[in-house]
Amino acid sequence: MKTLTSTPKQDGYRMPGEFEAHRGVYILWPQRPDNWRNGGKPAQKQFVDVATAISEFEHVTVGVNDDQYENARNLLPDQVEVVEISNNDSWIRDCGATFVKNDQGGLRAVDWTFNAWGGLFDGLYFPWDKDDRVAQKMAEMEHVDRYRLNDFVLEGGSIHVDGEGTLITTEECLLSEGRNPQLSKEQIEEVLKEHLNLEKIIWLHKGIYLDETNGHVDNIANFVAPGHVVLAWTDDQNDPQYEISRENLEILEQATDAKGRKLKITKLYLPKPITITKEESEGVDAIEGVQPRTEGERLAASYVNYYTANGGIVFPIFNDPNDEKARETLQSLYPDRKIVGVPAREILLGGGNIHCITQQVPEA
Amino acid sequence: MKTLTSTPKQDGYRMPGEFEAHRGVYILWPQRPDNWRNGGKPAQKQFVDVATAISEFEHVTVGVNDDQYENARNLLPDQVEVVEISNNDSWIRDCGATFVKNDQGGLRAVDWTFNAWGGLFDGLYFPWDKDDRVAQKMAEMEHVDRYRLNDFVLEGGSIHVDGEGTLITTEECLLSEGRNPQLSKEQIEEVLKEHLNLEKIIWLHKGIYLDETNGHVDNIANFVAPGHVVLAWTDDQNDPQYEISRENLEILEQATDAKGRKLKITKLYLPKPITITKEESEGVDAIEGVQPRTEGERLAASYVNYYTANGGIVFPIFNDPNDEKARETLQSLYPDRKIVGVPAREILLGGGNIHCITQQVPEA
Repeated sequence: MKTLTSTPKQDGYRMPGEFEAHRGVYILWPQRPDNWRNGGKPAQKQFVDVATAISEFEHVTVGVNDDQYENARNLLPDQVEVVEISNNDSWIRDCGATFVKNDQGGLRAVDWTFNAWGGLFDGLYFPWDKDDRVAQKMAEMEHVDRYRLNDFVLEGGSIHVDGEGTLITTEECLLSEGRNPQLSKEQIEEVLKEHLNLEKIIWLHKGIYLDETNGHVDNIANFVAPGHVVLAWTDDQNDPQYEISRENLEILEQATDAKGRKLKITKLYLPKPITITKEESEGVDAIEGVQPRTEGERLAASYVNYYTANGGIVFPIFNDPNDEKARETLQSLYPDRKIVGVPAREILLGGGNIHCITQQVPEA
Repeated sequence: MKTLTSTPKQDGYRMPGEFEAHRGVYILWPQRPDNWRNGGKPAQKQFVDVATAISEFEHVTVGVNDDQYENARNLLPDQVEVVEISNNDSWIRDCGATFVKNDQGGLRAVDWTFNAWGGLFDGLYFPWDKDDRVAQKMAEMEHVDRYRLNDFVLEGGSIHVDGEGTLITTEECLLSEGRNPQLSKEQIEEVLKEHLNLEKIIWLHKGIYLDETNGHVDNIANFVAPGHVVLAWTDDQNDPQYEISRENLEILEQATDAKGRKLKITKLYLPKPITITKEESEGVDAIEGVQPRTEGERLAASYVNYYTANGGIVFPIFNDPNDEKARETLQSLYPDRKIVGVPAREILLGGGNIHCITQQVPEA
């Protein structure tokens, strides 16, 4: 693996949309007891279910710390590959590589700096050194060269692209004090444009209410296809989420993409507010310096946090009446893909969802 | 990856000779300061030289503990792949997978139990849990299924095969108290025959004088080709090595292989005895429970500990007059391969040599 000093735009590489063809997907194994209740065992079960569901559509590789390697191998099905990738926690969407490709079969990795969603300012744990090495290790295992940004913090969950020059993100996250406070909005745009090969960035205001990632876009909006965005929605005007979604809807309605198109927008209704139970709270080691998991705290549940696989959509369900409505909406959005719901409350309790625990490798 | 409950012989898989075509080779990165002097830095340099030399002939993957990952990546050339494989020490010939293949393009791993060359009886360190997971991780990364032997201890360096049904090993190692004392010699033969698909096992008596592996065969003899064995040799009758080599020569001269052939035997002259210097000894952490590296101690130096690559031989040199003689002998043995000598005193100081730090993956 070579570390390149040019940029993807200079070299003719672009980030494809998640809906484009994949070589496979990576997942990391959850275990830290100060984030995942009961030693991570309930979450591990749901990670296995997600990995198994996705493996129906594409090759799945699960990266594991050495001390959980045997357990993960025993719990995962044979068709899932288990490799060693040391990590501080299991959010590979955010710490993993963002892959870029060209039209000649070339594939490369973009390796952003990761600082646990805000570093020493408002990051969720310390240290995050192992997480920051994950992208490089993915590049090695995929036999591709990488671009490394030592001075630019980004998580993969804070961006979505249409593969045709447009990116959506949120100001709440990318302009946060804990990421790149030394850079102006214009400078941040410039880095994104150079490294993902973009012409247009659409800035939503905020992500899902109380999302601890500083409002990652991947929990609130996604590109279904070029020119078509799905947006997390509620009709309940008393919910603080309403105003956030309404503002974003306005932005999207007024936006044009890199090709000058107006966007089609589809609303994906949220589940009812979900809060942490006493039992769930008590299962998490309460120690200083990590995100507390307090009884009664509202979780940032959203169906938009789904994974787009080759020929399939794997989306979180919450034992909520809107689970079925979400399935119907997703089926209408992706008529050619099989829609698979996986119970994901345990993943949600850790601070994210199915999209957050996956990172696709595009077909070269 | 699936763990199979059959045996390679039942399934029609055999271990190919090292001289057959390779997909690539694995190496592990040295670092433990109670075995490698000066924090492993001099050894790391020579491992880089070995990896670089082999990379001229075939794909090289280096497995590294996470805390040395960045350093290894920085020191190794771009064409060498660096992946994470936690280990207790860097002898992948011994803890790594032994690959077997069939004639239909099938490739599988045999994952023996590893116990650090003798377990609690006379093993060289404790614990060895990470080493014992190395073979499984190699199988995952090579996308192959594996056979796991939970109740049979073997190191890859204690065997050599001709790929046509014959194996050579030493009684000193395979019948040692620290390996499989519950099994008779015949029972050990049976396990080997089942798992490597053999008909004939040739038992040498001992390995190189003072070899801390209990006399691994890969330091004293090797198959150049079916029917042709190279044997480490000295003409110095006052050297304790003389009697060991002479005995083995007799055994080989009287042996026939699985095909009923008599063996051609070529002598490969050893370097002069090499001993540990005061400075070298003082660079190693002297702690209880690991092999001491005492000043004046004789090392088990042998040119037979070379690696057979696709189109090349990478062999250790010791700044000894016999280095050149070894090169000439190897060139005559392998007229179609390029012979590359790499200074290897630092590897020798750790207890093995170039063959010990490599493990090939055969072409499927």
